[in-house]
Amino acid sequence: MDKKIITIGRQFGSGGRELGKMLAEKLNISYYDKEIIDSAAVISGLSKEYIAQNDEVVTNSFLYSLVMGTRTLTGQKTVEEIKMDAQREALKEIAAKGSCVIIGRVADYTLREENPFRIFISADENDRVQRVCKRDSLSKEEALKKIRKMDKLRAAYYNEYADAAWGKADNYDLCINLSKISMEKAIAMIVMNF
Amino acid sequence: MDKKIITIGRQFGSGGRELGKMLAEKLNISYYDKEIIDSAAVISGLSKEYIAQNDEVVTNSFLYSLVMGTRTLTGQKTVEEIKMDAQREALKEIAAKGSCVIIGRVADYTLREENPFRIFISADENDRVQRVCKRDSLSKEEALKKIRKMDKLRAAYYNEYADAAWGKADNYDLCINLSKISMEKAIAMIVMNF
Repeated sequence: MDKKIITIGRQFGSGGRELGKMLAEKLNISYYDKEIIDSAAVISGLSKEYIAQNDEVVTNSFLYSLVMGTRTLTGQKTVEEIKMDAQREALKEIAAKGSCVIIGRVADYTLREENPFRIFISADENDRVQRVCKRDSLSKEEALKKIRKMDKLRAAYYNEYADAAWGKADNYDLCINLSKISMEKAIAMIVMNF
Repeated sequence: MDKKIITIGRQFGSGGRELGKMLAEKLNISYYDKEIIDSAAVISGLSKEYIAQNDEVVTNSFLYSLVMGTRTLTGQKTVEEIKMDAQREALKEIAAKGSCVIIGRVADYTLREENPFRIFISADENDRVQRVCKRDSLSKEEALKKIRKMDKLRAAYYNEYADAAWGKADNYDLCINLSKISMEKAIAMIVMNF
């Protein structure tokens, strides 16, 4: 197999991360999710905690700088920009190492010159609520609230940095609804492409 | 195989229709595209020409009635409503007959109680331009203009009648980009689900 970069965007609670892990195992290639945070911390000198807290989120400092135009006034990078630059560098280092599965973090757009195979995973809201209830020990109401909030944050973050629309089919190569297609079948379908 | 209704939404010029035809042949089930117009004409008493002209388009008479609120004033159906009612009935008759592939016409939403397998087909703009140039004997500029116009019309039509967003991944079970995944592979992937 030639080097293959597989990126996975996903709705919160859809099972996209689990699919990514199983896919990487099946293809025997590396898997990156939270690991990207660690690399970005090392590259930027920012703390892991700060990056983790602001993972896949457009931070307030960034919005503030946009509104106030402080970036153009001072010419200095905001903490958000430092974080994003480090994350981009981390993603490029990861991609340079060889075939891998990368979860989220605008990797599809950041690594577009590598011609990644871009996957998006969705699931019906009911199934996502169930999954999040169980995983995060939340009530149904709390899980639903969290799902909607997280998807909004992810979409805002993606749309800010990717120059494309999060979750829009034509922005990906393959989108799979895990409420209709089983995890095993989804993986078999993806593997057919490699 | 149990009865299976497969609906295909598609970007203009993406190759979704060709895929649908090949898929129906492969599965040895019926294929419906323009045939829906004929049925809707018979059911409604409207001419085939009128329905074909307003196929997958929100007609002006409908927009006019929305703006003017004429429907609620007179209580009579507009021609657009007659057309849509007939189309819905035609789709339900088609679905009752047995397994089939149906192209466009908000069939995924109209037949939602049949639990259809909902596919959306996209392709990169360059590939779509090439396909439309060839198929419709247009210049590149004309083809690009047509693609953008048709997709806008389809989206407006779908969003009006489906209570969902055209081309948004989580509104479908499987979305495939034919610029990245070959027609043959796409069909093999779909067939795995039946």
